Amino acid sequence: MNRPERIDHIGIAVHSIDQVLPFYKDHLQLPLLGIEEVPSQGVKVAFLAIGQSKIELLEPLSKDSPIAKFIAKRGEGVHHVALGVTDIKSRIADIIKNGIEMIHETPVEGAGGAKVAFLHPKSTNGVLYEFCEKM
Amino acid sequence: MNRPERIDHIGIAVHSIDQVLPFYKDHLQLPLLGIEEVPSQGVKVAFLAIGQSKIELLEPLSKDSPIAKFIAKRGEGVHHVALGVTDIKSRIADIIKNGIEMIHETPVEGAGGAKVAFLHPKSTNGVLYEFCEKM
Repeated sequence: MNRPERIDHIGIAVHSIDQVLPFYKDHLQLPLLGIEEVPSQGVKVAFLAIGQSKIELLEPLSKDSPIAKFIAKRGEGVHHVALGVTDIKSRIADIIKNGIEMIHETPVEGAGGAKVAFLHPKSTNGVLYEFCEKM
Repeated sequence: MNRPERIDHIGIAVHSIDQVLPFYKDHLQLPLLGIEEVPSQGVKVAFLAIGQSKIELLEPLSKDSPIAKFIAKRGEGVHHVALGVTDIKSRIADIIKNGIEMIHETPVEGAGGAKVAFLHPKSTNGVLYEFCEKM
């Protein structure tokens, strides 16, 4: 099947990873998988494991970061939902054929070396979906 | 372990299930599990399967529905994230002990006969989380 196989992760915009980490790590007891900076996207990210999915906390590295702008406009909260796929190029081609607009028509590099591509939220009724293929 | 075991579902507020269903069912090819009305919560819901999780589309049944108010204020988009747990009463007791405020301190009945309880988003940096225990 060529459908998304799982929710790979939910991306959550936060002011400060340090400030919210106790809720996820200590109160919910989700294992912390790692923290890394992705300067190309202007973010620091922390990944926590939950079943076959992850929660990705996104902290802006500067005021120009897309995540900083998102928080300024909408407040902290869910930023995007990543759908785990195989063969991301075929998935992109299929979805464009169905009339869905992509933000990335060609995959870009995401955290952890994944290939990712975002769908345009105006084609998906306000949800920012990402296709995410792990290498 | 007493941690949430998986993302049970992501609840997405939409004006019309009929209008968005082709994206999920035909374009993403996610299996439609069912559609039901939950009058006690003022919503019609559709569930689609993705791995060990589901996407729950939430359509308001009236203008007084909490989902109608959410859409009026924030637009369509992600409404809540449900964490699959066992022994929901213990999970609620633990999280309250950690200083997290619950909307429901006692579980209520959700779609599909699940026991559910929402955490207060002011305790979780803007994300509306739900504990969800399947019967």
